[in-house]
Amino acid sequence: MQLSTNPKSNSQKLRGILTPNIVPLDDQGRIHESELRRYVDWLIAQGVHGLYPNGSTGEFLRFTADERREIMRIILDQVRGRVPVLAGAAEANTRETIRACETYFDMGATAVAIVSPFYYKLSPRAVYAYFKEIADNTPIDVTLYNIPLFASPIDVPTVERLAFDCPKIVGIKDSSGDLPHMARMIQAIRPHRPEFSFLTGWDAALVPMLLMGCDGGTNASSGVVPEITRKLFDLCELRQYQEAREIQFELITLFDAMIGAAEFPDGFRLGVRLRGFETGAGRQPLTAEQQSELTKLADTLQCLLARHGLTNAPHSGCDPKMGPAAFTFGSTPLASSPSGKAETPPVPTPLTEDQLTQIVQTVLTELGRPR
Amino acid sequence: MQLSTNPKSNSQKLRGILTPNIVPLDDQGRIHESELRRYVDWLIAQGVHGLYPNGSTGEFLRFTADERREIMRIILDQVRGRVPVLAGAAEANTRETIRACETYFDMGATAVAIVSPFYYKLSPRAVYAYFKEIADNTPIDVTLYNIPLFASPIDVPTVERLAFDCPKIVGIKDSSGDLPHMARMIQAIRPHRPEFSFLTGWDAALVPMLLMGCDGGTNASSGVVPEITRKLFDLCELRQYQEAREIQFELITLFDAMIGAAEFPDGFRLGVRLRGFETGAGRQPLTAEQQSELTKLADTLQCLLARHGLTNAPHSGCDPKMGPAAFTFGSTPLASSPSGKAETPPVPTPLTEDQLTQIVQTVLTELGRPR
Amino acid sequence: MQLSTNPKSNSQKLRGILTPNIVPLDDQGRIHESELRRYVDWLIAQGVHGLYPNGSTGEFLRFTADERREIMRIILDQVRGRVPVLAGAAEANTRETIRACETYFDMGATAVAIVSPFYYKLSPRAVYAYFKEIADNTPIDVTLYNIPLFASPIDVPTVERLAFDCPKIVGIKDSSGDLPHMARMIQAIRPHRPEFSFLTGWDAALVPMLLMGCDGGTNASSGVVPEITRKLFDLCELRQYQEAREIQFELITLFDAMIGAAEFPDGFRLGVRLRGFETGAGRQPLTAEQQSELTKLADTLQCLLARHGLTNAPHSGCDPKMGPAAFTFGSTPLASSPSGKAETPPVPTPLTEDQLTQIVQTVLTELGRPR
Amino acid sequence: MQLSTNPKSNSQKLRGILTPNIVPLDDQGRIHESELRRYVDWLIAQGVHGLYPNGSTGEFLRFTADERREIMRIILDQVRGRVPVLAGAAEANTRETIRACETYFDMGATAVAIVSPFYYKLSPRAVYAYFKEIADNTPIDVTLYNIPLFASPIDVPTVERLAFDCPKIVGIKDSSGDLPHMARMIQAIRPHRPEFSFLTGWDAALVPMLLMGCDGGTNASSGVVPEITRKLFDLCELRQYQEAREIQFELITLFDAMIGAAEFPDGFRLGVRLRGFETGAGRQPLTAEQQSELTKLADTLQCLLARHGLTNAPHSGCDPKMGPAAFTFGSTPLASSPSGKAETPPVPTPLTEDQLTQIVQTVLTELGRPR
Repeated sequence: MQLSTNPKSNSQKLRGILTPNIVPLDDQGRIHESELRRYVDWLIAQGVHGLYPNGSTGEFLRFTADERREIMRIILDQVRGRVPVLAGAAEANTRETIRACETYFDMGATAVAIVSPFYYKLSPRAVYAYFKEIADNTPIDVTLYNIPLFASPIDVPTVERLAFDCPKIVGIKDSSGDLPHMARMIQAIRPHRPEFSFLTGWDAALVPMLLMGCDGGTNASSGVVPEITRKLFDLCELRQYQEAREIQFELITLFDAMIGAAEFPDGFRLGVRLRGFETGAGRQPLTAEQQSELTKLADTLQCLLARHGLTNAPHSGCDPKMGPAAFTFGSTPLASSPSGKAETPPVPTPLTEDQLTQIVQTVLTELGRPR
Repeated sequence: MQLSTNPKSNSQKLRGILTPNIVPLDDQGRIHESELRRYVDWLIAQGVHGLYPNGSTGEFLRFTADERREIMRIILDQVRGRVPVLAGAAEANTRETIRACETYFDMGATAVAIVSPFYYKLSPRAVYAYFKEIADNTPIDVTLYNIPLFASPIDVPTVERLAFDCPKIVGIKDSSGDLPHMARMIQAIRPHRPEFSFLTGWDAALVPMLLMGCDGGTNASSGVVPEITRKLFDLCELRQYQEAREIQFELITLFDAMIGAAEFPDGFRLGVRLRGFETGAGRQPLTAEQQSELTKLADTLQCLLARHGLTNAPHSGCDPKMGPAAFTFGSTPLASSPSGKAETPPVPTPLTEDQLTQIVQTVLTELGRPR
Repeated sequence: MQLSTNPKSNSQKLRGILTPNIVPLDDQGRIHESELRRYVDWLIAQGVHGLYPNGSTGEFLRFTADERREIMRIILDQVRGRVPVLAGAAEANTRETIRACETYFDMGATAVAIVSPFYYKLSPRAVYAYFKEIADNTPIDVTLYNIPLFASPIDVPTVERLAFDCPKIVGIKDSSGDLPHMARMIQAIRPHRPEFSFLTGWDAALVPMLLMGCDGGTNASSGVVPEITRKLFDLCELRQYQEAREIQFELITLFDAMIGAAEFPDGFRLGVRLRGFETGAGRQPLTAEQQSELTKLADTLQCLLARHGLTNAPHSGCDPKMGPAAFTFGSTPLASSPSGKAETPPVPTPLTEDQLTQIVQTVLTELGRPR
Repeated sequence: MQLSTNPKSNSQKLRGILTPNIVPLDDQGRIHESELRRYVDWLIAQGVHGLYPNGSTGEFLRFTADERREIMRIILDQVRGRVPVLAGAAEANTRETIRACETYFDMGATAVAIVSPFYYKLSPRAVYAYFKEIADNTPIDVTLYNIPLFASPIDVPTVERLAFDCPKIVGIKDSSGDLPHMARMIQAIRPHRPEFSFLTGWDAALVPMLLMGCDGGTNASSGVVPEITRKLFDLCELRQYQEAREIQFELITLFDAMIGAAEFPDGFRLGVRLRGFETGAGRQPLTAEQQSELTKLADTLQCLLARHGLTNAPHSGCDPKMGPAAFTFGSTPLASSPSGKAETPPVPTPLTEDQLTQIVQTVLTELGRPR
């Protein structure tokens, strides 16, 4: 990861793909610590540039305040400084949020990401006041998190004001998927704060966002196919946009399959399971019908992953209309890193058919289990 | 309050005006227990039919899980069974929510109200699964809480399915303000479950909602002008809809003034303060500009209250264009209760000018204080 | 119809139910003049207070400018002053709209209704400028038409400004269905312009709207069940709101069935056909699947009408779960008019089974015909 | 323009920047034929690849059916086959629309663009039926026009179905600005119909859209700064995306200034006037306040144009903070055409200060004139 120094803050510029990781749960619905640790190691080995726990994909809201801290403790302990960790830190009110910032600072997080106030729909002025109060009282760098689908929107003038008034605010993660919005933010802020980081959370527009100047992304699909998002990012770094575009199309197919499954982020949880991790079921209850649909999706998703050599095909086979993928990872080495370092992420070993059969069995069993 | 028995549940039908009370805070932003107790007594004395703590007006989300329990403990202890208490019980996930249900059941709450999952936008199926899981595992009666502006909507078929499948679900609080939506729910459910309670949370349509068959309301303005909402309800009980309509118009004026102020529910917090309670500032930070606007609103709101004899006019006087109110409470006794009991709520004593001056001073001071 | 004089305008206050009539088409898709004349006579005979051609239900946009004038010519010629006619007059631009106003004034229309500019989403200021220019240059009284679902919204301050600045603007037809919005408009304007007319276009909230002070409605369902909407209105005039409410519930059932059918206003067109008129198919093409669904709706709708004695039941019979209607018109005389005149609308003669079979046949045939 | 042949249709693939031209009006608000002809010549001279009259920018809805035909007649007569002309052909209903298609086919238009039905919000099925009926009965190639902000959305499955079922449908113009939506359409249709044309109408995302595979754009700003949109397109053809991105940022600044002015498309009309054409005022009335704001915008916009050497600066001077442009056209020759032809568009002659002063005077005068 290329880093540029921010003289006003205590961290280096956030760049690259930071994975908003899901949290594996055990069969009692509790945090599955050993599997979370194994998952973190795997993500780093596949080449993600950083981690972003307690985000929307991480279902921060479905954990208690204590659990959120426990998740951070486990991840920071496992990462041990190998990659930057951006910690989701939104709590019930500014005072609690500032306490979480202090805790994560002490734990060694690189920065925090704080979602705009949600539930209540706040005006831009109150959004400003909220982040200003936090930024004035936190020891750790803050990344704004704009996700207008779920929370009060952070508009361009508000981001601009916050970037100018608050040196502790060092970036924005924007999940609106609105490309001109991102361009306007970059245009307004970058000339004055070149070290300010712009990250996109909308996987389906990752290449165009990087072309327009984003520094990276916090993309849910990077938790399932880190090889693909990494390759996409590397190609954009090399300005090989035509090649990157082909991967973008593949990523849209995968992303659409996962985002449309049951309730967000169940599709991504399923994807992680297909990569060989015991994820458990998510905490939002599903109807029997939804569970059955999710099981059907497992086959489709497995086929999509198999096309890229990331898993074997399911026993039931795959629709031949899917055709061969534009690229695979099972045998092809990735392009070497654009940063100059010979940082070739290890080629993942595809699961055996027996392993896959067992995983799908587990999906079925766990989905039916009471939470 | 008239009550009809629900053979399937452990409570009587919820009817009348249940106040979604704000929580007074001290100058450190902590729960102001003595003032909360005093406020509860006053609300009951003014004739509200019940209380609804930890709702949207109660800023449930801006308190920690521990604080929410503490608020319930104080209120239930102070109420001591004088009126029903509907406890907001939504927590981080179904397991935590069920625990809160158990706690509030043990504490003696009448029922709980659970808001539809928020932040994530869930499908109707997942909304069903969510409430079904809770209803199957709770010892206390559950009221659904539909507020599509802030949370995943609960559509008519989902309410219908839940009403049929879950005897523990005994009502819905709907804050959509959508009158045909309410009518459709009543039409679908009442013939089969006559004891199911329909409460509206949209003050600006209270009379029409009652006309169409609502059993009552959980209205933020009842925490500021309980005399007015009570009178409005009583007139509807007596089917004096023309008279009730005039009060509805007055209520819209008051409601619009409070709902448009700064950020919800700051206008209602201000209103409670003008009725003589030390409310403290809310937990959502405001800009200096917003604080100044809120102070201006204090005068307008005080004039509106003064027109009804509920406060004195501010020192600065009131716009004569406001004209006399259609009715006052300062000297006119309320209609006696339609329930047969001679339950005349006590006429409130207006504050003196000095008391009011002091309150406005306090507003200004506290608003500028860091939270 | 009770009328109060507007000294500033050339018309009397618009009150009661004004039917936004559909336009019968022949098998070539042309205006079916004789059937349109017969339909107009029938509506007047059933007691509607007025007509509103070239509205949304009248599919004004799917006719050419020449056709819209032709529709007005036929209707005004047929009505011959028996009831007021409110003419939809929106054309391509203000100049064309003003010309249409002049034409309809010369033809003898009572007033025009002009929808807010659509397609482009205009700001409140431009909405003001648009109506101001028309109102300053028209010989005929103008009713604003607010339908935010389809056109640029007209907000309360804009209605207020227009009501104060333009004596030629004599009312508003509001199809938002938003009850507090209606209340706010009435509250703002009625004290200053008591003759200003407030009409609601949202059938599902007609009773509450009348209770809150609306002068009447322009309701699509009045073109299908004029007996029901008339009875509902009369009961509200008599302040028998409890009785009116029961009819409102029935109307919601009918309205929901028709508004949910195929594409608006196909369900209402079908309803008119079931009342015995050759309506032809609408001008918006439908898929075969939609046509088939519409045919299924014909049975349901016929059963709903049969419950009230307005048609016979279909050959295939009706779901007994539908139960008996709360009231019927086949044998029960309507309440006499509240206006004092013994204006009992004639009881409609239900169609015979054979007539109905033939109608349903025709539906099927015509739906498959190219437009 | 590079063309690829569509064996199923009578036209060549639409590619490049097609200008959705505004229509100059005279001081009576009538079509200003001579100025329209001069404007058309200028656009072609500046290198636009085609014209798109009677689109949203062309205010098709504010002209009568006769005027729309007149506009087409003038433009096709003036163009005389030099560039393709895509004719907006939506009329009141399918029959009228098909007639317009026939007329424009006879007149020699290259293809028509038909906006999805507006005002009424149609379901995807009815949108399909609408376009299917037209496509089955038209002699000319049809481009779908998706603009969900103003009209019923055309979703991906509907575009896909239409592309497969209707050989006469040869492309889609999409103004949603939603990049993943465009990518999904390209992914679904291009493998099966490589000659199907994808055009974007959202200027603020033009480069990313071209990168993702769009064939071109119909961009309002190309009517004001054709040099810039042409250069942007050429650079994308040469795959010089980094350079194109810088121009994209400049285009966003210009686009935002024009789209935010008064009511759409007044800002673009003003821009055309600053390039030296007598545009007259638009047909939507404006308040005095809006007119005054538009006059202020004239200076800002002139400064933005002056930065690129496209006009002189206004007498009042420009904010030095605007700084120098990343590129200018006044002295720098454009990159030669990527199509191989040495098609260097002529460098425009900037207006003199006197000419500009006169233009701004005219703006002020005309804006105050009644339409």
